Amino acid sequence: MSVTKEFVCLLNFLAIISGHRRFHSYNGRFGSSPSDTWNNDAPSRLFQPIPATYRLIQSGAPPQPYNRSREALQLPLLADGEPLANEIYIDIKEGLQYVFQTKSAWAFAAQGSATTAIQAVLDNLIEPGDRVLVGICGHWGDLMADIARRLDANVITIRKRTGRRFSFQEISSAVKRYKPKVLALVQGESTAGVFQPLDGIGDLCQREGCLFVSDSTSVVGMQAVMMDKLKIDAAMTGSQKGLGGIVGLAPIVLSDRAVERIKNRTKPPRGYQTDLIQIAQQWNATGDFQSYSVPLLYSLRESLALMAEEGMENTFERHAKATRQLHQGMEALGLRHFVDEPNDRLVGITTFHIPSGKDATKISDYMLNRHNIFISTGYGEIAGKVLRFATYAINADPTRVENLVMALKDALNSSETNIS
Amino acid sequence: MSVTKEFVCLLNFLAIISGHRRFHSYNGRFGSSPSDTWNNDAPSRLFQPIPATYRLIQSGAPPQPYNRSREALQLPLLADGEPLANEIYIDIKEGLQYVFQTKSAWAFAAQGSATTAIQAVLDNLIEPGDRVLVGICGHWGDLMADIARRLDANVITIRKRTGRRFSFQEISSAVKRYKPKVLALVQGESTAGVFQPLDGIGDLCQREGCLFVSDSTSVVGMQAVMMDKLKIDAAMTGSQKGLGGIVGLAPIVLSDRAVERIKNRTKPPRGYQTDLIQIAQQWNATGDFQSYSVPLLYSLRESLALMAEEGMENTFERHAKATRQLHQGMEALGLRHFVDEPNDRLVGITTFHIPSGKDATKISDYMLNRHNIFISTGYGEIAGKVLRFATYAINADPTRVENLVMALKDALNSSETNIS
Repeated sequence: MSVTKEFVCLLNFLAIISGHRRFHSYNGRFGSSPSDTWNNDAPSRLFQPIPATYRLIQSGAPPQPYNRSREALQLPLLADGEPLANEIYIDIKEGLQYVFQTKSAWAFAAQGSATTAIQAVLDNLIEPGDRVLVGICGHWGDLMADIARRLDANVITIRKRTGRRFSFQEISSAVKRYKPKVLALVQGESTAGVFQPLDGIGDLCQREGCLFVSDSTSVVGMQAVMMDKLKIDAAMTGSQKGLGGIVGLAPIVLSDRAVERIKNRTKPPRGYQTDLIQIAQQWNATGDFQSYSVPLLYSLRESLALMAEEGMENTFERHAKATRQLHQGMEALGLRHFVDEPNDRLVGITTFHIPSGKDATKISDYMLNRHNIFISTGYGEIAGKVLRFATYAINADPTRVENLVMALKDALNSSETNIS
Repeated sequence: MSVTKEFVCLLNFLAIISGHRRFHSYNGRFGSSPSDTWNNDAPSRLFQPIPATYRLIQSGAPPQPYNRSREALQLPLLADGEPLANEIYIDIKEGLQYVFQTKSAWAFAAQGSATTAIQAVLDNLIEPGDRVLVGICGHWGDLMADIARRLDANVITIRKRTGRRFSFQEISSAVKRYKPKVLALVQGESTAGVFQPLDGIGDLCQREGCLFVSDSTSVVGMQAVMMDKLKIDAAMTGSQKGLGGIVGLAPIVLSDRAVERIKNRTKPPRGYQTDLIQIAQQWNATGDFQSYSVPLLYSLRESLALMAEEGMENTFERHAKATRQLHQGMEALGLRHFVDEPNDRLVGITTFHIPSGKDATKISDYMLNRHNIFISTGYGEIAGKVLRFATYAINADPTRVENLVMALKDALNSSETNIS
């Protein structure tokens, strides 16, 4: 054995110095053998380490996660179907019931970003030709309409200028007029920083016989999402937003009405991997549907545990305080809010106009290069037109907010951020 | 400030001892206020730590990842759109070109398990009514047919008994007879442990004008997948299989022919989040499509780096050796292969019949409880009917294989594993 091994090593050495590809001992029994078309040159880029360095992410993009949510990624792994996996599912389910304030047993997470959750919910609730009413106040509303159209829904949209939200009356008239099977609204339009109140809409939908879908991605963990009280039929978020975890799991909670609708479908949903009944079966230990990323499950579980330990009301209070502190600090620097109406502003994600004479990209470059802080200059329709700051999860912290305001003050005082 | 804070604390204390929910200072400006329906009882389960303990996973389920792939999860995070994110995409693309042996620029990863990749590929290549021919030798073939049917394809299947594979002639006659727009085959049917040779099929498909899709999940990283030479139009895998990473990313490589087909679609694919043209744009730094789980990107990048450093042929040689060692060890224990034909057996995933008089579940329980080793007793049609062992990635190691064989010897010698 040792002699053979050394002989192979010698052959490899000879092959390398003679410029040929390495010797190999494929015997044809195991799959394809290398051949003339074989390329054994490994990409040189991969021989360098990843040059990742720490920076403070205070844009609306995935922010720093809570340390514990991040450290949980390192816990020993599980195999599919181990009993502990089922325990983790139950922990997460109860955590989601807590943060969505619901008694529904249909609480679980799909794999992917929050967009996967939106797609999963619409794909499961909609059958081709169903009339779907989507309220659009910015990028995420447009996204829901796009997703619903790809599912061959009959999509009707109502629209507000970016930075505004709908009144109850506007939604109510549209629902009564169009009689949709599904109403889809964005509770927190994170691109603009707008909060859409949902009070009364669930009752309206029940009276009109339509299902009520709320994209609560930018609200969960930052403000109360009272799913049962608001009579929401499907609400979703992403693990990386207010829950302060890692992107990759997308919590979904369904009402019994929503599940009824899914069970009565004439055909299964188009997406196999996001078939919510099968996902729910796996989470209830009655099915073995798909391989979940166990580190991400651990991490989401820890995010929910942190919220349980802090207490939900304390968490929300911390977010409200940090957001007020940010507003006061930025207003003192002379920044004007992008969302005119104070009551319409989100907790945790705030947008401001670019000060006159200043360049958005130069400000964000300055913030990153001088202060190691990543901020956003807008997304979608308002890309490059605003400054957007996140004060949620680990960033909902007085010292971090103060640091952000001081850094921005420096950036705005610098001539390097002027329009040239 | 301090006085206010202590006053709130006092009120909270009074509220708690008097049995009421905690005082809160919501001012109505920020979203919904708690109300009568508010439940502030955090789930008690979440106050316990996760009881994860280390075990050796040697089933075909996600195995232990390589240490470096796992440790990369902890690197500092990035925000969406940072230049380093684009660098990581390029690193992964070049790594995938290396392991799939292709020059195609259409190499990237979707988010989710390998099933997401299968769904993404079929959804992008198929339009409703398209004729799709699926070869089924076990669970993964059935899955592809199910996914294609949900996409309203006209699905035609050819089928082999589990444990067998198709001859070239069988595939060739079916393609000529049915003239499908897409032929979908499973290169490694991991449930049974069967390897499907693909030689000549790409040429056949080009002659017959159909696209050739290969689910190479259980082959990539264990054996050569010569995508260009085999003229595969779409091949995919999961980050957790032969690449030895963490579940959650699903590499996909497309040929120019496949991309041409996608670009000529009359309507966009049904799944928004798995729109491959938009994913490719993000990976080529010409779009900003979705939030990726950055720790998973780091991890996949490190899996590919490990393979580049070891050298692909050495990696395959290590897998072939470990698999031979497993076969010899298990045969010496008297185990009979589930796959009769030696040439049809996969590298890295091997199935054996349950020895007579022995109970599959008792064997796997014994292995886990006495030896801390998780093995599989089959999945899908052959669930509970086989013993399945993984010798891939970190498990393609002589000491680990020896340890597995010794533990199984002990399990088979024990009366505790007898059928009662």
